[in-house]
Amino acid sequence: MKKISILGIGETKMGRLADRSLRDLIKEAGTKAIEDAGIEKERIQAVYMGNFNSQFLTGQGHMGPMVSEALGLGNVPTVRTEGACASGSLALRMAIMAVSAGEYDVVLVGGAEKMTHQPTETVTTGIASAMDFELEAMQGFTFPACFAMIANRYFYEYRNVKKEMGMVAYNAHQNALLNPDAQMQKDFSLEKILSADPIASPLSLFDCSLVTDGAAFIVIANADVADSIATKHRRVDIIASGHAGDSLTLASKASITSFGAAKAAAAQAYAQAGLKPADIDLAEVHDCFTITQIINTEDLGFFEPGKGGDAVAEGLTALHGAKPINTSGGLKAKGHPIGGTGISQIFELVTQLRGDAGERQIRKADIGLAHNLGGTAATCVITILKGR
Amino acid sequence: MKKISILGIGETKMGRLADRSLRDLIKEAGTKAIEDAGIEKERIQAVYMGNFNSQFLTGQGHMGPMVSEALGLGNVPTVRTEGACASGSLALRMAIMAVSAGEYDVVLVGGAEKMTHQPTETVTTGIASAMDFELEAMQGFTFPACFAMIANRYFYEYRNVKKEMGMVAYNAHQNALLNPDAQMQKDFSLEKILSADPIASPLSLFDCSLVTDGAAFIVIANADVADSIATKHRRVDIIASGHAGDSLTLASKASITSFGAAKAAAAQAYAQAGLKPADIDLAEVHDCFTITQIINTEDLGFFEPGKGGDAVAEGLTALHGAKPINTSGGLKAKGHPIGGTGISQIFELVTQLRGDAGERQIRKADIGLAHNLGGTAATCVITILKGR
Repeated sequence: MKKISILGIGETKMGRLADRSLRDLIKEAGTKAIEDAGIEKERIQAVYMGNFNSQFLTGQGHMGPMVSEALGLGNVPTVRTEGACASGSLALRMAIMAVSAGEYDVVLVGGAEKMTHQPTETVTTGIASAMDFELEAMQGFTFPACFAMIANRYFYEYRNVKKEMGMVAYNAHQNALLNPDAQMQKDFSLEKILSADPIASPLSLFDCSLVTDGAAFIVIANADVADSIATKHRRVDIIASGHAGDSLTLASKASITSFGAAKAAAAQAYAQAGLKPADIDLAEVHDCFTITQIINTEDLGFFEPGKGGDAVAEGLTALHGAKPINTSGGLKAKGHPIGGTGISQIFELVTQLRGDAGERQIRKADIGLAHNLGGTAATCVITILKGR
Repeated sequence: MKKISILGIGETKMGRLADRSLRDLIKEAGTKAIEDAGIEKERIQAVYMGNFNSQFLTGQGHMGPMVSEALGLGNVPTVRTEGACASGSLALRMAIMAVSAGEYDVVLVGGAEKMTHQPTETVTTGIASAMDFELEAMQGFTFPACFAMIANRYFYEYRNVKKEMGMVAYNAHQNALLNPDAQMQKDFSLEKILSADPIASPLSLFDCSLVTDGAAFIVIANADVADSIATKHRRVDIIASGHAGDSLTLASKASITSFGAAKAAAAQAYAQAGLKPADIDLAEVHDCFTITQIINTEDLGFFEPGKGGDAVAEGLTALHGAKPINTSGGLKAKGHPIGGTGISQIFELVTQLRGDAGERQIRKADIGLAHNLGGTAATCVITILKGR
């Protein structure tokens, strides 16, 4: 791939936004990203839009032209990408390919989801479309049940990390207290987290991420073109993009305590960047459940298999630890606007790499990694960013 | 873009396939395409899958990993693209970008839709997600009503072409009689077509395309790599890909008797190929309604604005006319498996360019064009193929 720069970023407050429509969210985040890039909107040549399941949840498909119309971008080509919870990162990856192919120089990439207006059963049904409908969802399988099985297997192969899972949630909520865009800004004690009601054993309430409305957008550009554009921010480049897949069904995976798609995507991204796991200063990883974050940090090579829980217990993944994970608050506390999550991860990394993260700013932030899973780790996209 | 070759093609019979699941359709068409390419499936490096609204119609999202699992492709990266009825062509375009960027050499591209198991109201609601939900669908607007307004405006600006619209349908059904994959193989008289019940004036029953289950896949490759692979077929190359957009809403378009997205995508594709409209031997165009085909042939520069109806009346667009349009039978008679349509158009062009179209083979088939619209022409993708 060509060297690509991120010119601008924008996102909405995440949350239960009863008074905001999907169009509102898109308009706000898209406008912010273009303004932050400091370019005329006429320079945008294409729109890549990640969305998971707005057709079922809001009745709105074909979201690309909705974005271009809402932002006044004229006849630009648009596309929506979908790969469950990795939909936003897939939009970014498709945009990276088009810029790398020389097709476009300046592209708007976004992601959005509007979910909280629907009753819980409808949201659950909508989310279940990310698994195999016939073989899993139609049989009553749900994602909490799925990741509970994963956690139980992890406990069997390694050890019980229920307490460390609680610490993952604790860290997420502590970080979210410092992120004004976060959905749930509450100072929960570890004791309260660990004593919460069960959802699907061993997962309890705080082991599960949130249902969220929100949108995030970024403007990317061929780095040569970007260099000709004045910027008020530290310039952040995309130096690697990895993408791999796995079976849609849980039953067909080689392992469920380590995700094949994540390991393959990570290997691709590290090779492309010429970096090792130790070179990553901070990462936003896909903590749809707390056990998932522990597994993700192992798949990314930050910690040995089975040692992700120890790393949490030792404080390594906390805001000022050696390897800060989800400084934004993550899917757990910042929120999980499904199609928007991948782009919101990039928003956080750029904010940190620019040194603009305010109270949650980490000390050294030069290289950041975003890890975005779809479904039962059937899709994984990994993006590595570097500040100049 | 790089020069890209089409190594293999496969599609299912189109129709009301009550006994076939989405997975069945994917497995059949994907297997056929890989077999037709004459390669080991291990050479497939990525999957690009077009699907419009399976999440609402069947409960199944995240279709990329479903394809790779069904076909046994291992950990290959996958993505689903959606741009309403242009979803399939968008999958192809994203794949073209990735190959052009040098990311992959051999890629599987597909499209599928499973619709006919749902009651008509559900299908209508699902299809309406291709328009603006809040501003159009929620107000009771439907696509037949939308294209009826377009036809009425066309009649006002030019002349009444209701009879020529009937001839579009007649040609489509005559061509479909010769296409074994076509959904509706019936020898309708022009008189019967013209006397059919009204749907939304001036559109009557035969002016509307079909509701269809079906899937189509192709294998594409970097042309340099493709040249090292033995083939039993005439080699067909993708020599241009154009893509443009327009407002999602009908009300915001500059014109509704000529589609801005189609004209912009066509200009891009012709420039890329170094060709003029007169150089195109045959075209598959998006005849969601008969009036749309007439407008499309004008937008593509085959005929002057307002003269598309005359061209049909003169027989130019018939199977053995000077500019054969929709030799497959088109959306009108071959069928319209929404997410599969764009790839099924490519299937037909390749079949003709290879000289494999049997009874419907046209005399000169060296350069073919596929024109695929999404929604109310809010997305248009145009692809030009050339036989060697």
